[in-house]
Amino acid sequence: MTLIELPKGFRGAGVAAQIKSSGAKDLALLVNDGPLDFGTAVFTTNKVVAAPVTWSKAVVKDNSVTAVVLNSGGANACTGPDGFYDTHSTAEYVGKALDHSSGDVVVCSTGLIGVRLPMDKIYAGIDLAVTALSTNSALNIAEAIMTTDSHPKIFNKSYESGVQLFGTAKGAGMLAPSLATMLSVIATDAVVDPAKATEIFESVVNRTFNRLDSDGCTSTNDTVLFMASGASGVMSSDEDLEAMMEECCNYLAGELVRDAEGHSKIVEIKVVNAFSESDAVAVGRSCARNNLLKCALHGEDPNWGRVLAAVGTAPAEFNPYKIDVALNGVWVCKASAPGEDRSLVDMTGKHIQILIDLNAGTESATVWTNDLTAMYVHENSSYSS
Amino acid sequence: MTLIELPKGFRGAGVAAQIKSSGAKDLALLVNDGPLDFGTAVFTTNKVVAAPVTWSKAVVKDNSVTAVVLNSGGANACTGPDGFYDTHSTAEYVGKALDHSSGDVVVCSTGLIGVRLPMDKIYAGIDLAVTALSTNSALNIAEAIMTTDSHPKIFNKSYESGVQLFGTAKGAGMLAPSLATMLSVIATDAVVDPAKATEIFESVVNRTFNRLDSDGCTSTNDTVLFMASGASGVMSSDEDLEAMMEECCNYLAGELVRDAEGHSKIVEIKVVNAFSESDAVAVGRSCARNNLLKCALHGEDPNWGRVLAAVGTAPAEFNPYKIDVALNGVWVCKASAPGEDRSLVDMTGKHIQILIDLNAGTESATVWTNDLTAMYVHENSSYSS
Repeated sequence: MTLIELPKGFRGAGVAAQIKSSGAKDLALLVNDGPLDFGTAVFTTNKVVAAPVTWSKAVVKDNSVTAVVLNSGGANACTGPDGFYDTHSTAEYVGKALDHSSGDVVVCSTGLIGVRLPMDKIYAGIDLAVTALSTNSALNIAEAIMTTDSHPKIFNKSYESGVQLFGTAKGAGMLAPSLATMLSVIATDAVVDPAKATEIFESVVNRTFNRLDSDGCTSTNDTVLFMASGASGVMSSDEDLEAMMEECCNYLAGELVRDAEGHSKIVEIKVVNAFSESDAVAVGRSCARNNLLKCALHGEDPNWGRVLAAVGTAPAEFNPYKIDVALNGVWVCKASAPGEDRSLVDMTGKHIQILIDLNAGTESATVWTNDLTAMYVHENSSYSS
Repeated sequence: MTLIELPKGFRGAGVAAQIKSSGAKDLALLVNDGPLDFGTAVFTTNKVVAAPVTWSKAVVKDNSVTAVVLNSGGANACTGPDGFYDTHSTAEYVGKALDHSSGDVVVCSTGLIGVRLPMDKIYAGIDLAVTALSTNSALNIAEAIMTTDSHPKIFNKSYESGVQLFGTAKGAGMLAPSLATMLSVIATDAVVDPAKATEIFESVVNRTFNRLDSDGCTSTNDTVLFMASGASGVMSSDEDLEAMMEECCNYLAGELVRDAEGHSKIVEIKVVNAFSESDAVAVGRSCARNNLLKCALHGEDPNWGRVLAAVGTAPAEFNPYKIDVALNGVWVCKASAPGEDRSLVDMTGKHIQILIDLNAGTESATVWTNDLTAMYVHENSSYSS
């Protein structure tokens, strides 16, 4: 396998700091050598947030980010003032090692909630990572942020304009709205306008990562960070930046839903002719979170009544007697009543599409989810023990 | 087993109308011979409602209900105008047989969504039920409304005042807010004031049945009907009526959570010191609907971090750094950080209590739920096939 080069201006490392008892890689460092030090991020909407989220929200406020340090093996969430001190110390340690201001160092953590991090191992891991910094460390970084992920998740592309975009993400459970339990770092060597790039980034994340709802559970640590070094010397147009960003985030969000804990189906819920885009998202999300529907999908049962029962609980405008539903292309429900014969639906494949026509307007949105399986229950009933 | 007598003024029957292929009882009729014909009901909040809900909402508007006919084996939901015609015809058929106005006949259906009812069987069943009407049919009625319930659910009590209250309920899946997938009929021979009784009934249902959230799924057919015949000649005081009603609804709601599909745990989520009662309910419900938490409960894993992650998604006022959580009496989380040793928690019993102190006010509420199990997935992935 050819080593993947990071975009110009970036160096990184992914190392085994022994935070995980398995000895797998668990600490990553990505450094932006500039000339730009642009950074912006989107965080979980959970009111209960981990210490690194509190810290990093403050760091990105001025759009100046020179490094990010990420660890798996511990979320540093619900750890009180001590946990915040640990995050602060981590940023200071990185800042000292790189001769950066600690106030420009983003910190991300993922793993079990409610447990302090082993700080001696974090410090030793940072030392190791600083020594190992290189431009071809993309895979190591992606590996170091994995938890229950089955494989590292990487997007990397060089565009004709001369710009490169690299992204990595982790997350396999707690995959829900307002970001999945996920950390993601996206880096480019494009020259960007801070205000415009922030706006574009937030809008793209909102319609990619935030439309993934694997299990309805929102994590305390979700962070998607975007950094730009400007080292290519190429200024991306807003349109180009948005297109690149969308391609990257769509791919990584898809990687997450394809790797969700214990799933057997990948489910695309496409809502069309909604009164508003947010209505379409709300209806898609209601379906994505309906356990009975998710069980039926697992059982390959074209039980469209459960789709309607789920739609009916969504905070959205529609006429409940005018809903059409197609399962894998078969319109099993027309005007909220039986349509084509449900026995025509083939749900044996890995991918299931639920198409919901609300007949209430012109807007649409797609939400991605998974089925609910005995394996999901199994994997999540014995996580911390 | 002694046959249970209905309250004075009521006659009923539960028969096998062959709607269910199993040949089990599937049609119930309860007739109020007065002198009062008081009736009121609370229905599902799902926007997609079954034909019998649309019909029965109109019936109870004037608080005059002389009979209710209930069938299992088919929900008559998402069946379009034809389905509504079927419900209307059912009420007319009952009205004719009893010489009542069809406009005073409540209709309830439960079973699979999206399938028309076999009306010939419904009519034949009504004929059979009318012939079989008796005052000791409580058990037959309770049996005839069962779907995946493991046993008939009955509350029956005679009070010192000379008043009797009888209630029955069904429901084992789609047990969620705004009523579980449940039908329930409560009948008394007390003399009641219509306006006061309606108010008391709605308030009691709101804090009993509506605080049951087994699987987060709201059905299209939920109906809780309250009827009073006044045949005891005893006027109940508001306090007495409320106390009786609360005892009955609490018992029946408990019966539902104890019989939920595929559960292994009964979970009491008690939220205290909330800013408002609705905040307490919202926090309880967020926990009741969090699949990761429900899996942890199934695994007897005192993973209180998942409680906090669930609390953090609730639309409620609280300081996210000031939450205390006790699992089965052990305060594993104090001020949103680790408290007592989690290994002290014994979760091996059938009953688990999650006590959440929001430290945000003086209000409290309890929401009941179940754990998420492989058996739930199994039972609900093969329901309609």
